[in-house]
Amino acid sequence: MASAHNRLKAVQQHLTPAQVHAKAVDPVASMDQERAKAAFDIRELTYLLDGGKKVTELKERMMLELERDPLFKMHDIHDISKDELRERTMQKFSSLLHHLQNEPVDQFRKRMEVVSMLDPGFWTRFGVHYGLFIGALQSNATPGQLGYWFEKGALSLNGLVGCFAMTELGHGSNVPGLETTATFDEASDQFIIHTPTLTATKWWIGGAAHSATHSTVFAQLMVNGKCYGTKCFVVQLRDPKTYACMPGVNIGDIGKKMGRDGIDNGWIQFTNVRIPRGNMLMKHTKVSRSGAVKEPKLQQLTYGALLQGRVAMVVDSGNVSKKALAIAIRYAAVRRQFSSSDSTIETKLLDYPIHQRRLMPLLAQTFAMLFTGSEMTTMYNEMMQRLENAKPGDSDLDEVMETLKETHSTSAGLKAFCTWNCLETIEQCRQACGGHGYSAYTGLAGMYQDFAVQCTWEGDNTILTLQAGRYLISSYREAMKGKKLSPGVGYLNRLDQLIGKKCQVKELEDLLRPEIIIEGWQVVCANVVKNAAKEFEAHLARGKKPDDAYEECSQSRLYAAKLHTFGYLYHRFVDGVAKVSDDLKLVLDSVSLLYGLYTIEENAGAFLQYEYFSPKQIEFIREKTNALCKVVREQAIPLVDSFNLSDFMINSPLGRADGNVYEHYFDQVKRSNPQGEHPYFQRIIKPLIERKSEADDEEEDDEAAGLESEDEDEDEEEE
Amino acid sequence: MASAHNRLKAVQQHLTPAQVHAKAVDPVASMDQERAKAAFDIRELTYLLDGGKKVTELKERMMLELERDPLFKMHDIHDISKDELRERTMQKFSSLLHHLQNEPVDQFRKRMEVVSMLDPGFWTRFGVHYGLFIGALQSNATPGQLGYWFEKGALSLNGLVGCFAMTELGHGSNVPGLETTATFDEASDQFIIHTPTLTATKWWIGGAAHSATHSTVFAQLMVNGKCYGTKCFVVQLRDPKTYACMPGVNIGDIGKKMGRDGIDNGWIQFTNVRIPRGNMLMKHTKVSRSGAVKEPKLQQLTYGALLQGRVAMVVDSGNVSKKALAIAIRYAAVRRQFSSSDSTIETKLLDYPIHQRRLMPLLAQTFAMLFTGSEMTTMYNEMMQRLENAKPGDSDLDEVMETLKETHSTSAGLKAFCTWNCLETIEQCRQACGGHGYSAYTGLAGMYQDFAVQCTWEGDNTILTLQAGRYLISSYREAMKGKKLSPGVGYLNRLDQLIGKKCQVKELEDLLRPEIIIEGWQVVCANVVKNAAKEFEAHLARGKKPDDAYEECSQSRLYAAKLHTFGYLYHRFVDGVAKVSDDLKLVLDSVSLLYGLYTIEENAGAFLQYEYFSPKQIEFIREKTNALCKVVREQAIPLVDSFNLSDFMINSPLGRADGNVYEHYFDQVKRSNPQGEHPYFQRIIKPLIERKSEADDEEEDDEAAGLESEDEDEDEEEE
Repeated sequence: MASAHNRLKAVQQHLTPAQVHAKAVDPVASMDQERAKAAFDIRELTYLLDGGKKVTELKERMMLELERDPLFKMHDIHDISKDELRERTMQKFSSLLHHLQNEPVDQFRKRMEVVSMLDPGFWTRFGVHYGLFIGALQSNATPGQLGYWFEKGALSLNGLVGCFAMTELGHGSNVPGLETTATFDEASDQFIIHTPTLTATKWWIGGAAHSATHSTVFAQLMVNGKCYGTKCFVVQLRDPKTYACMPGVNIGDIGKKMGRDGIDNGWIQFTNVRIPRGNMLMKHTKVSRSGAVKEPKLQQLTYGALLQGRVAMVVDSGNVSKKALAIAIRYAAVRRQFSSSDSTIETKLLDYPIHQRRLMPLLAQTFAMLFTGSEMTTMYNEMMQRLENAKPGDSDLDEVMETLKETHSTSAGLKAFCTWNCLETIEQCRQACGGHGYSAYTGLAGMYQDFAVQCTWEGDNTILTLQAGRYLISSYREAMKGKKLSPGVGYLNRLDQLIGKKCQVKELEDLLRPEIIIEGWQVVCANVVKNAAKEFEAHLARGKKPDDAYEECSQSRLYAAKLHTFGYLYHRFVDGVAKVSDDLKLVLDSVSLLYGLYTIEENAGAFLQYEYFSPKQIEFIREKTNALCKVVREQAIPLVDSFNLSDFMINSPLGRADGNVYEHYFDQVKRSNPQGEHPYFQRIIKPLIERKSEADDEEEDDEAAGLESEDEDEDEEEE
Repeated sequence: MASAHNRLKAVQQHLTPAQVHAKAVDPVASMDQERAKAAFDIRELTYLLDGGKKVTELKERMMLELERDPLFKMHDIHDISKDELRERTMQKFSSLLHHLQNEPVDQFRKRMEVVSMLDPGFWTRFGVHYGLFIGALQSNATPGQLGYWFEKGALSLNGLVGCFAMTELGHGSNVPGLETTATFDEASDQFIIHTPTLTATKWWIGGAAHSATHSTVFAQLMVNGKCYGTKCFVVQLRDPKTYACMPGVNIGDIGKKMGRDGIDNGWIQFTNVRIPRGNMLMKHTKVSRSGAVKEPKLQQLTYGALLQGRVAMVVDSGNVSKKALAIAIRYAAVRRQFSSSDSTIETKLLDYPIHQRRLMPLLAQTFAMLFTGSEMTTMYNEMMQRLENAKPGDSDLDEVMETLKETHSTSAGLKAFCTWNCLETIEQCRQACGGHGYSAYTGLAGMYQDFAVQCTWEGDNTILTLQAGRYLISSYREAMKGKKLSPGVGYLNRLDQLIGKKCQVKELEDLLRPEIIIEGWQVVCANVVKNAAKEFEAHLARGKKPDDAYEECSQSRLYAAKLHTFGYLYHRFVDGVAKVSDDLKLVLDSVSLLYGLYTIEENAGAFLQYEYFSPKQIEFIREKTNALCKVVREQAIPLVDSFNLSDFMINSPLGRADGNVYEHYFDQVKRSNPQGEHPYFQRIIKPLIERKSEADDEEEDDEAAGLESEDEDEDEEEE
């Protein structure tokens, strides 16, 4: 960089003062300047976010290992084809498999988290086998069956690669409505797996196109002409020796997607494929040799597994937002454009109030998601512990079950709004990088394309918000009947105090106290939940069945879930920050307050609608949000540094830690697009531009550019 | 489709009643059902949107011509590489060139509009020469120079292909701050074009990588050591006979982008490149043979050209939204998922209130953008006509100039918010297609990637909103001094009546009258503009310079511009609908009312903040928005049909006019990804899954799946 800086200086010496302001100022110096502002111990914040020094060091080791592994090279990732990407993604399996078999589970999980931030496509492809396929076995197989498939190689990937065939071309969210059939044939003691219609084609199946030998297949269990609903079966798809499809199995490639092209999503059609009866996973429903069906007495509890997935996606939303913001904020710290009136040096983007407004609230939101993810992970672990220890009849069991239900619903809303938040953050960061955000090499476009699917899979976001809203309505109605609710929705037990409550503070400054903001959210949420419930009840009163009544008030459900979720995020953030001390607390207090005020401002309509805040108070909050953006901006680079992502992990020249963005960007573009022969001049351009006679071209070249006569006049006038 | 339907029926006969509800219902019949609901003449609405029957027929002819032109085939567009796409894009030049030279300008413009909806990448690449390069010549060249370059082949693309080199690596929005220099050398009567630093590298230059022989280059004019600011020069980049770069010209490829990969964006570095003095375009500033610089007396008026570009982007936002909504709404009309409690048939997505809520307001917004685009085009043409006819000193001239300034500012806000609206519409449509929205073949992912750049180019959206906000503040201040403003901001002349005004209607139903909604927007806008101006003045009073004071209140400027723009869109929409009669008016009244109520709801915070609407009124508006979504939903397919886009233009199996989405989607996926040999089994998968001994595999295969013992127990229990 020193050389670039010197070049720049050398050039500037030949310029007039009027031009100097137009020159870029050394971006490395700009970055150093920002870093020097740190008012807290960056390393301590990293430990806090990671969950301790040991975890940070572990993650650093893993980042280094990935960086040095040639298979994980990332610099060419934007230019290789889908086919190359798929192949390379498969090659990475052996590397991760090695670690899976040689390190403790917790450590491996952390490795997966790091890998997911670097290469979400690979992470998903690996996760199809180890998360979905193995997970389906664990949830649905008897211990004997589980042992059988593990011995057969499922855990070690020994001659067996699994996939997970649930979704069909015509059915996504409605799992009970799947069309694939599994018909018991008593004579042969087999099930016949069959795709009856085009829309029953298994679709989007990750790993089906090229990877899997086996699949867990969700199909309607048919025994003696009776349908018992959707169950899970293991079906062999391919011969592991040749990867030829098994008879009756027809597999195709789903092809190009918006992102994550490293995964070989495929479609599968089964035409009367016979599998042994034992390949039905019988942990819950059982089918005997003679075709007797034994259904479980209780509906299986799948809360736990779903919940864990959702909490993971809250954490993932925080992690991906980290990466996006690292790029946009570091770029804003060194990019200069226009000068303010009293300076000859152009102004850093980060110094523009509007740019602070674009990025600082998103930075605060990222911390909110990270703290919430971490708080929820702890809650989840404690809850599962209590659940495991509780015995039927225990008084504790009811309470835990209540909390489980509530967390299940809250996590549905969190999954939806956090993935939406993250997607929006990526796009805002991309736009904040101006034109350069449109380059593939700056990383944000690809990040958007990879992340977008998170809003749809593991529960379509809109459907999840409706589930969360439905739970809020039913909780409200139970509270009205006197039931004590679990803490997350406990405010619905205090409706008397909350409905109609106005914020009464002596000084406007008191509005900045977290307890006031938390109360504000509770008042607003109590009101919107009540309104949604009243609307629901009005539909019931008009004779609608409950399900239809719920559909009719779905907009109110979504609104209630949204406000509940944002209030929840703020509350968890404040809880998390309360455990911190000293300098760290100071900076995090600003960040959490910014988040609180920003989300109130964004939802000002609700706060005014229910008159918790007055117009004057909202105006004050708006001003303070501006002011806090400035405060947080001062620590923006140290905060981003605390994310502790290496340049390799960020993989964007605009997000370089050293700030040397232009040289790295130019290098990347040149390396990815070497200069060379023109690819199609002879074939396409030459015939096009030479299609007329070329006779008089040379004559024209000798003329000056049509200016002579005017030109001479000018001279006379001026001199 | 008949055969698929029969297949389906055949299958259903073998199913139990419990399963029938899970079956897809014939999507073609579902679509027919929707089409039969049309309560207006679809064709008439098409004529209205297109601007008359003749235009519709012209567009249909062009769509057909494109569809039959093998170069414009679109079915493989998602699977070809960037290099193939670039080459094919260049091949299309000759086709369009033929039309350019053989049809009237108006007709050709319409053709470009149609092409832009089909292939935005090609449209841009063609537009670089004919829009940007030729446009720069027209704006900056003397008549003699213009004639010279036209004779040289600029119009006919005869041995000359142009590009437009303004943006630099380190400078986008700040054109006066560009670093490239053009230094006059009197001895040789030449300019020396030079790139002094890395950040001065011309960047993002469309057509530079492979197409252009010449470029208009924006550089700092330096004469005798003095800098005269940014001017425009024509620089030859390549030898048209060989396409080798000229001496001193260094060109590279910018490579992969988020979208529009058919354009060969490049970077250019000039190292002391000499050009004749006449290659400086001297319409405004002139440099004589002896180095005398004559600057124009008046700043050139570029309002016109900028304005036209912005109006075009409002129209484009409407057009692209049409395409996105055609896909999402048609899919929603045939996709069924879950059944309501009193039906065995699954429910159409379009019948879910929440799905109506997701798509109907966006449909209404699309109409708002289309009507506004059309109203503005008319206004623009009238204004330019008046401007052309007016002579200096005319009383009309001042008024036109005032309107021009206002429209220039309003169009800045419209460009920003309409392109943001459209990008958001595409993404919402994509998510509304569930998982299938993530497939490249359903078209929405690519549409997002292609469109995203519109938020940045031709003026970064955020910067444009700030310009619009700045104009609102200065208009307010002029109005306070008694100046009569132009109609678009005329409400600022009625501040006395608007500030503090509450909506007082006898019946809540009166809130649905357009004049009430228009007044509401004016009240709210008057308030936010006033607040922004007060904030600005407070900063002035604290001693800030005007530019700095404007920066400090940029969030308020953005907010004012946002509300002004949405109010404006609604007003223009209502104006446009007022000209329509009969059945068309009926349906468009619902659509425009939905738009009005939806935007109030979205900005409820402002309406409550300034107490124009009471909380109770807002609640009523919320309910009516829900109700109107249902009303508009009934006409959703006829409305989408009125867009009159052929299946070829829409290029998405989910957007098929006949509703036969699943068969077309499956066909597309199969055609794009033919089944064949496994690409890397031998090389990668086999070594991975066979890395352990295979000795006992065969034994295991003979065992049943670990179930025997349990299995027998079960049988005994059950029988």
